Amino acid sequence: MAGNSFGNVFKLTTFGESHGPAIGGVIDGCPSGLKINFNSIQNEMDRRKPGQSNIVTQRKEADVVTFYSGIFEGTTTGTPIGFLIHNKDQKSNDYTHIKDTYRPSHADYVYDKKYGNRDYRGGGRSSARETACRVVAGAIAKQILSKVDITAYVSSVGKIKIEKKYSELNFSEIENNPVRCPDSNIARLMEDYIKEIRKEGDTVGGTISCVIKNTPIGLGEPVFDKLHADLGKAMLSINAVKGFEYGSGFRGTEQKGSEHNDSFNSDGKTRTNKSGGVQGGISNGMDIYFNVAFKPVATIMQKQETIDTKNNIVEMKGKGRHDPCVVPRAVPIVEAMAALVLVDFYLINRTTKL
Amino acid sequence: MAGNSFGNVFKLTTFGESHGPAIGGVIDGCPSGLKINFNSIQNEMDRRKPGQSNIVTQRKEADVVTFYSGIFEGTTTGTPIGFLIHNKDQKSNDYTHIKDTYRPSHADYVYDKKYGNRDYRGGGRSSARETACRVVAGAIAKQILSKVDITAYVSSVGKIKIEKKYSELNFSEIENNPVRCPDSNIARLMEDYIKEIRKEGDTVGGTISCVIKNTPIGLGEPVFDKLHADLGKAMLSINAVKGFEYGSGFRGTEQKGSEHNDSFNSDGKTRTNKSGGVQGGISNGMDIYFNVAFKPVATIMQKQETIDTKNNIVEMKGKGRHDPCVVPRAVPIVEAMAALVLVDFYLINRTTKL
Amino acid sequence: MAGNSFGNVFKLTTFGESHGPAIGGVIDGCPSGLKINFNSIQNEMDRRKPGQSNIVTQRKEADVVTFYSGIFEGTTTGTPIGFLIHNKDQKSNDYTHIKDTYRPSHADYVYDKKYGNRDYRGGGRSSARETACRVVAGAIAKQILSKVDITAYVSSVGKIKIEKKYSELNFSEIENNPVRCPDSNIARLMEDYIKEIRKEGDTVGGTISCVIKNTPIGLGEPVFDKLHADLGKAMLSINAVKGFEYGSGFRGTEQKGSEHNDSFNSDGKTRTNKSGGVQGGISNGMDIYFNVAFKPVATIMQKQETIDTKNNIVEMKGKGRHDPCVVPRAVPIVEAMAALVLVDFYLINRTTKL
Amino acid sequence: MAGNSFGNVFKLTTFGESHGPAIGGVIDGCPSGLKINFNSIQNEMDRRKPGQSNIVTQRKEADVVTFYSGIFEGTTTGTPIGFLIHNKDQKSNDYTHIKDTYRPSHADYVYDKKYGNRDYRGGGRSSARETACRVVAGAIAKQILSKVDITAYVSSVGKIKIEKKYSELNFSEIENNPVRCPDSNIARLMEDYIKEIRKEGDTVGGTISCVIKNTPIGLGEPVFDKLHADLGKAMLSINAVKGFEYGSGFRGTEQKGSEHNDSFNSDGKTRTNKSGGVQGGISNGMDIYFNVAFKPVATIMQKQETIDTKNNIVEMKGKGRHDPCVVPRAVPIVEAMAALVLVDFYLINRTTKL
Repeated sequence: MAGNSFGNVFKLTTFGESHGPAIGGVIDGCPSGLKINFNSIQNEMDRRKPGQSNIVTQRKEADVVTFYSGIFEGTTTGTPIGFLIHNKDQKSNDYTHIKDTYRPSHADYVYDKKYGNRDYRGGGRSSARETACRVVAGAIAKQILSKVDITAYVSSVGKIKIEKKYSELNFSEIENNPVRCPDSNIARLMEDYIKEIRKEGDTVGGTISCVIKNTPIGLGEPVFDKLHADLGKAMLSINAVKGFEYGSGFRGTEQKGSEHNDSFNSDGKTRTNKSGGVQGGISNGMDIYFNVAFKPVATIMQKQETIDTKNNIVEMKGKGRHDPCVVPRAVPIVEAMAALVLVDFYLINRTTKL
Repeated sequence: MAGNSFGNVFKLTTFGESHGPAIGGVIDGCPSGLKINFNSIQNEMDRRKPGQSNIVTQRKEADVVTFYSGIFEGTTTGTPIGFLIHNKDQKSNDYTHIKDTYRPSHADYVYDKKYGNRDYRGGGRSSARETACRVVAGAIAKQILSKVDITAYVSSVGKIKIEKKYSELNFSEIENNPVRCPDSNIARLMEDYIKEIRKEGDTVGGTISCVIKNTPIGLGEPVFDKLHADLGKAMLSINAVKGFEYGSGFRGTEQKGSEHNDSFNSDGKTRTNKSGGVQGGISNGMDIYFNVAFKPVATIMQKQETIDTKNNIVEMKGKGRHDPCVVPRAVPIVEAMAALVLVDFYLINRTTKL
Repeated sequence: MAGNSFGNVFKLTTFGESHGPAIGGVIDGCPSGLKINFNSIQNEMDRRKPGQSNIVTQRKEADVVTFYSGIFEGTTTGTPIGFLIHNKDQKSNDYTHIKDTYRPSHADYVYDKKYGNRDYRGGGRSSARETACRVVAGAIAKQILSKVDITAYVSSVGKIKIEKKYSELNFSEIENNPVRCPDSNIARLMEDYIKEIRKEGDTVGGTISCVIKNTPIGLGEPVFDKLHADLGKAMLSINAVKGFEYGSGFRGTEQKGSEHNDSFNSDGKTRTNKSGGVQGGISNGMDIYFNVAFKPVATIMQKQETIDTKNNIVEMKGKGRHDPCVVPRAVPIVEAMAALVLVDFYLINRTTKL
Repeated sequence: MAGNSFGNVFKLTTFGESHGPAIGGVIDGCPSGLKINFNSIQNEMDRRKPGQSNIVTQRKEADVVTFYSGIFEGTTTGTPIGFLIHNKDQKSNDYTHIKDTYRPSHADYVYDKKYGNRDYRGGGRSSARETACRVVAGAIAKQILSKVDITAYVSSVGKIKIEKKYSELNFSEIENNPVRCPDSNIARLMEDYIKEIRKEGDTVGGTISCVIKNTPIGLGEPVFDKLHADLGKAMLSINAVKGFEYGSGFRGTEQKGSEHNDSFNSDGKTRTNKSGGVQGGISNGMDIYFNVAFKPVATIMQKQETIDTKNNIVEMKGKGRHDPCVVPRAVPIVEAMAALVLVDFYLINRTTKL
């Protein structure tokens, strides 16, 4: 209800503010018997953590996860997995200047109106730092879905875009550049652009694309909980996301049915895949692919006019350490949320037939 | 879990197949004391019903709702509202040809794989006929949210698009043409195009835009259940939807933070509204606006190659009565789903403060 | 939230008032592939229905269920099962005398205070007529749990009690008398007593016991959703129930650990069964057994002092057709609720292990 | 689903094993604006903690709660409250002897069968240590329900029982003796008996009664989520509980309607209170009272025959530090669970009327 849980069978609940002592979460419903690969969890954390390159925020957080329960001698027991990630490098003083000020296009104003008070340090609960907990849970979900490949990458930064189809890209390039773009030429352009933007004290938006291979047929529920509807919600719940499209997406609206329909091969696979791996809300075994739109980060290092809590117009300038562009660090978050959606449907689907 | 319910406090559960005796639903959590305007419900039903104009399917359904409970002497009692909509004009024989055939880009194949059987008549549960139940619940939700204005309209059909901003449009034009497009010139082009497409035995996609005015500040929950995330899921759960974007949407990804940020006026309203009425997942009182992408209807009246349940390649041609373009009838569905999201958050928000 | 749904995976939602046109429900999450035995459903309905013998209410209801969805050619499809039971013999005029009066120990007063209005005819939503819908769903649940035997019976009426242990009783006697008591001598005493009570215009309470054999090991979840906790809630949600105990129950509180512990045989079965088939909230494969306490029906055919809606003290006398003792008809309801709890845990348990 | 959460709006999720590094929880949906009284939370913890007197287990745990989020400058912010309680005095070596052995009437056997593995140290997740987290959340719930008085006390130990009605008892005596029994004479008998039982290396069961005063009218939902049904589930979810009855309870089954009905006074209060403060599942403003049955603790310091994981019959004797009687320490747990049920219905009830 208060919206800090995600999933039905495999359910993640998160807590914690950007500048509190720690953030953390509980995973309930993780099946027993999973031998946890802890390196693989830390590896996902490292892909998301601040300070990993010179085009992201310079806050330094090791983002080491401490597990408190649900794992015994390295294997899940079926009981809830509680974990913490300590905040180490919070510089809360950086935020005293916004205590009584509402930053434009941030959640400050609405939190105050909704709750009657707020933890203003670093955005408090509205900070994207919360997503570190999603990455923990997503990393475990991926280990359950060991045969499914979930790959996200940056497909645009500002107006710089990959024009190739995903099938023409070399996904092994993704982690070879700090932008996480599989097209190394485009990646270089993006990186330069982000540096330029940062020098301006500005920020820029971008797009992440995600491709999921080897999804079993049958995941997703027909009416409200369609697979793509839950993927869409998952992505839209990530900070700064403004849009989601899967398969043919917005461009598909321009097409005719005769162009858009995916004919079957005799093996049940389809010749084309405008459907994006989902038909009637249910996975059909083809590649699932989708795009996620991220707006530019709201905190800029330029002067802006805004209001304070007494409705006076005041001038402010961003302080603190922030990302000039959010998409490089959001890649593992997109993957994590996709994994959470899939693992939940995967477990639910065990109850479908007699 | 099986995904036939929507909402937390104000919760709709639907049931029924396209060609069974009836479809129906239960609304649990409707507050007591609402004097129901039944005409207004029927009016919404009429906007969605088949046979309403010559650019939609010619199946004839009065789509009259029978209420069985929860309303006493015209007023809601706080107990669950059960209702049925009888199917009158089903012609199930139209579907015997697909009993053993999987229609391309329909849910036939995945239903069979997921459930091991299916009701093949008219798509069964996967038919958009289910959405009639959503319109019933949405019409009641609208009556609770009497001060909020939810207006959807067709903004594109194929490549024909409204280029104006929503603030330049005259919404009172929407119901004056069968396409439900507020720009009467564009509407005429769209109508002609849909007729042409139908003559070809083909179908075409389109886009619906929705504008919500006078939303109270504070709706939506900060993390997973962000207002726009639940709106996105709601829209993506409508048949044929391929994408969702709100506020600046996909175009916002190209902007810089300095361009994209919405500055405050001293009254807490913002000068621009790239945020689309939602900041940090919570409504800020500005207009909420979003776009929903619909693919072309999969049933076309042209020959297509496909497979049967024994994996033989066969030829098929659509029968039955179908929409050449789904967006005119989907307008009230988009509004209904938006109303369901808002009413739920509106009620939940009563529990936010001490 | 509003509490008209039960279960997580196999979820029943009910609606309807005692004197509306119909009551009904939706079962979501019923697995596909179950060949429905409709006779068996009707048989359960007949055990609950009014007018079945001369010791129960004389309201005449055939209680025939109409299914609208989710079953195709006699087999469940995995989509939601919607159903109605029409109210035929409502005599709503019997209730005009209570329109402005609060019946003692009924829900009239609290409904008015909670909701600000109520459907006063026959108790409206608070009528035990709602439980007919539970029997429908329970009958389907039993068919899924085909190897599990759920047997409830009347173990006391007023102070007349079966003193034997359940293992000494002949369950095939249960349906041979209108009281549903497996000890035929006690049954006769009970029947006579109920008739006497009715003649007095009075009512009397009683107890139902339930024994469940062949439950698979492992059902129930360890902490809040313990098997016996959900059974307890299920039973306490039945109208007129005042208490629940399982295994050694309240008497077990007087024992020492050395007396109460159930030793194991080498096959994992226990020599005694004070645990009542549940340890740590999880079924251990031994018989589950529990007792459910029912208070006397509140509607009596004697004069009582009460208040009206304007807080005047008034005199009233029961009208309408009522049960002098609720337990004979509640036997199938207890079984149905037990089946709903078990089937839900049975399906959930498929997600427990990797 | 996996059952580690309780509540709908005010929702507690717990995690942690008895002998892991810590146990903890997350409270989601706590309204913002509550000034937390931390002493009062610790006070509740001290009432539950081990080692508090010489009739309870001698494990030493300070049971200090560390809060990680959701509270800013002493006041709740509306965001989730995450907390840990570190395990300090675990002596896990005490449990190596049960690694391969199933203790009688414990959860060892069923955990192994359900999950395929278990954390055997101190019962792992099945340990009543988990209830410390419930006490934290219950203490906060009590602060929200500041006008409601929830008082639990020990009403029987073995066959030693309070015979007085609750209205004749002096509740201020409860905390004056280690048994938490408001009748000081009976308390002394109970205390002596528990000491004797301990000397025997045995354990004994008991009963806790709970009285709730000043509940607002209208809490509870009519059908499945009746107030007393959720109270029942809450109590039955506490370790070692075997039964629950409210109001007239099991004794009420022996009465006639004419004796059992509660007549109204003109102010809407009732002259008697057989209903136990709940009618039709909804609070009527009268005192809510109920009894909870606790079985004797299964771990005894006597030799017992049991089986090992290879189904050999073996002999075992309890080690570790255990309670000879669980009821003195369970008093604050009963209160906490009652508070969790009430606060949830209290918040939900804000959504009942238009």
